[in-house]
This record gives sequence, C-alpha cells and structure tokens, in this order.
Amino acid sequence: MRTIEVVFTPALLPLYEAKGKIVVVIDILRATSTMCVAFQTGVKRILPVSSVEECKIFKDFDFIISAERNAVKVEGFDMGNSPFEYQNPLLAGKSIAFTTTNGTKAIKLSQKMEASQIVIGSFLNIDVLCNWLINQNQSVILLCSGWKDKYNIEDTLFAGAVLNKIKQYYIIECDAALSSEILYETSKNDIENIVRKSSHSKRFTLLNSQTDDVKFCLQKNLTPILPMMRGEYLML
Amino acid sequence: MRTIEVVFTPALLPLYEAKGKIVVVIDILRATSTMCVAFQTGVKRILPVSSVEECKIFKDFDFIISAERNAVKVEGFDMGNSPFEYQNPLLAGKSIAFTTTNGTKAIKLSQKMEASQIVIGSFLNIDVLCNWLINQNQSVILLCSGWKDKYNIEDTLFAGAVLNKIKQYYIIECDAALSSEILYETSKNDIENIVRKSSHSKRFTLLNSQTDDVKFCLQKNLTPILPMMRGEYLML
Repeated sequence: MRTIEVVFTPALLPLYEAKGKIVVVIDILRATSTMCVAFQTGVKRILPVSSVEECKIFKDFDFIISAERNAVKVEGFDMGNSPFEYQNPLLAGKSIAFTTTNGTKAIKLSQKMEASQIVIGSFLNIDVLCNWLINQNQSVILLCSGWKDKYNIEDTLFAGAVLNKIKQYYIIECDAALSSEILYETSKNDIENIVRKSSHSKRFTLLNSQTDDVKFCLQKNLTPILPMMRGEYLML
Repeated sequence: MRTIEVVFTPALLPLYEAKGKIVVVIDILRATSTMCVAFQTGVKRILPVSSVEECKIFKDFDFIISAERNAVKVEGFDMGNSPFEYQNPLLAGKSIAFTTTNGTKAIKLSQKMEASQIVIGSFLNIDVLCNWLINQNQSVILLCSGWKDKYNIEDTLFAGAVLNKIKQYYIIECDAALSSEILYETSKNDIENIVRKSSHSKRFTLLNSQTDDVKFCLQKNLTPILPMMRGEYLML
C-alpha cells in the first residue's frame, strides 16, 4: 500500500526516499500560491530557476523574469512573488522564469532526488490536488518549503489540511504527518490568526506590503488547476 | 530580552546560532529520560560518546559502558537505554560511558556549536528544568533529538510543555515553538495515546519490550535533578 509522509523543510528531504514518489511542493507564503494564480491567469509555463543570476539570463529569450529574495522583489526583475501581480491578464500565454527564496529551491531539490512527479500545492488548489493524488497509485511526500531551511507553520498547516482530506487512502508512519494533522485539526477555524503570528507574516508586516497576501493565500479552491513539472517546466 | 527557540532535529541545529545560548537536549524516548533516572539513582557522571567503537574503549578505564542503536542494547555492552536498567542501586557512585542513536549525538553537536550550557530535559525533571531556565539570564534553544535526524512527536510535545510553563519570560519568534505549544496544548490530556501512535513507540512494540518505557518516560517530576555538561561529562 502507498504511504504519505510530511517533510518539514528541504534540508530534511535527503533523509527520505523521494525517488519514485510524488512530491507535492508547498510554499503557501507565497511561491506555490502565486504559481497557481499565474496559471489561472493563463501563463503558458514557468521555469523554476535556482539563482537570481541564472534567472536574469532568460530575459534574453523572451521570458518574463521574476525574482524574490527575503520576501521582496529583486531589483531589475519584471515581477516579484505577490499573487496579485500574477492576476494581470497581459500574462496570458507567456513564459516566466521564476526564482524565490524557498519554493523554487524545493522544486529543484525534488528533481535532483528523482521524484516521479512534482506538483504544486496551495490552499488555492487544494481540492483538485487531493483528488488527483487519490487517483495516482503512488506514495506521496508533502514537502514544506519552509524559510531558509527552517520550519514554518503555514506550510505545515497546509500539509495537515491535505492529510485531513486524504489520509484514509495511505499508510502513515511519519510523526511529522501525525503532528501536521493535529495542528490543522486544532487550528482549522482560526488559521488566519495563527498564520498571522508566524515569523513569515511578521516579515510581511515589517515590509509594509500594500496587499494582503496572507489573507489571499489562505483562500481555498480559487482555481481548479494543478501545475506540475513536465521536464524543466511547470505546466498544466 | 532573551529568546527561546525550538529546533526539531539535530540536522537543523546548524541553521541556528547556538553559540552563547543554553541548549536543552531532549530525547524523551529514551536517552534524556534515562540519564535523569541514572543520576537519581546516584550515578557520579555520564560521558556522552559519539560512536559505539569509542564507547567500548572506556570499559578499560573503570567505566560502565552503555550503548543503544535502533532502540536495542548493543551486544557486548553492560547496559542499554531503558530507564528501568538505571534504577539499579549498584550504579551509585559509578561513571558511565553512554552512546545512543539520537540523544548523545545531539549533546555532542551542541558542544561543537559552542552552547554556553547544555542541560538534560525530560518529563521526569521538567519543573526543576523550567525553574532553572527562568533564573538564567540567557537565550534558550530546546533541541529535539528526533530519530536519525527526522522529526519526532514526543520530543516536540515536551518542548511544548516547557514553553507552556515559561514562555512569558522569553521573546518567541520561531514557528517551531509556536507549533510545539499548540500541539502540547491540544494534546496535554491525551499525551500517552498520541505518543503511542508515534513511529518510535511502534518501534518498541515491534521489539516486544518487557517494560513499559513509554509510560515511564511520560511521568512528570519523578526527580528534582538537572544533569548538565561540565567539561566532557554530564554531572549534577
């Protein structure tokens, strides 16, 4: 029977056997939420890139270039990592080269560890993700992107929300999964308040953001799409 | 003002600044629980040792040698890692060289990262630990020993129990601390059941242990002692 595990940060992924498993990459604030919005808007493909320097090169090849480090847009790039930026209808049909502090790093590492499939999870597409997972006959790793390899609470809450929906289809022998689900069960009616206490939300408050990215990223099922890696690109 | 952080596994400790902070090493099942029992019995000192091979050498120097790997006593050693073994009154006044899968590793790493003080935490000595921490004017890291660098739930529950008692004395900007405390708050009346669902408890069940180490290690305040590193030794 298939298993499901939760990995709290990319730093811990090498301790797990990812080869041949589906890896769901989770970066609620904000990369994987933003990617869902981008595809909902009609973006054709997203190229996840490890470094800011590499990402910049793709400007020469008709890509829109997007880069975020430490929660802010990197100077000289077309776009940052706020989901609101990706609602612009002019993005339809475009290719984006994308690098972020945590989310794109988690995707690249999952590739290196030979995951059978890498898909993008966020509250915005939780139901389509869960239904798709149930229909695959494969073991699953829910990979939280965290913050610079440290644990974060918003990605864990999402892992717990997924487990809450689909755990009966899997064997669970993973304390991180057990904890995530308890955390979600306890917090599900108060998620926004808890996430606002998180270290990353405080980072946003300090940055004095004009948009309420936290509230936006906690909405469930805003889109019916499931971005997944096909070769080097995220596509539908 | 002083801070308190929770680190879920030794693999993540290098991401934190441990230098100059108190590190509380936590390995509820079972190393830090067992160490508390040993000192309560009257053991003079414990030498934490990294490897089984190194630990064996100390037999030549009038140490009792103790080794556990994968939850079982290593062949050729005097003792394993069950707290019940350390209640033997013949241990009073003795020196023990001790190596375990997770706990002694966490102690050695904390030394390497230049913690100002390294102390041993378990439910068995939780109140004396908390009172001591409050009286130090230093920042604290609660270091969960985990299982082979993976997250475990019993160490996290203990970190949450400590936070529940002393959080008002510290600044908390750590999502792992936030999660640990929610987990403990939710589970505090049902800890034994939750820990019995953990991966490590299942390991014990498979080993068909004669003693109920899980139940024993979840008792609060069985001893008023606080083992701490003094040079290379754990002592009172």
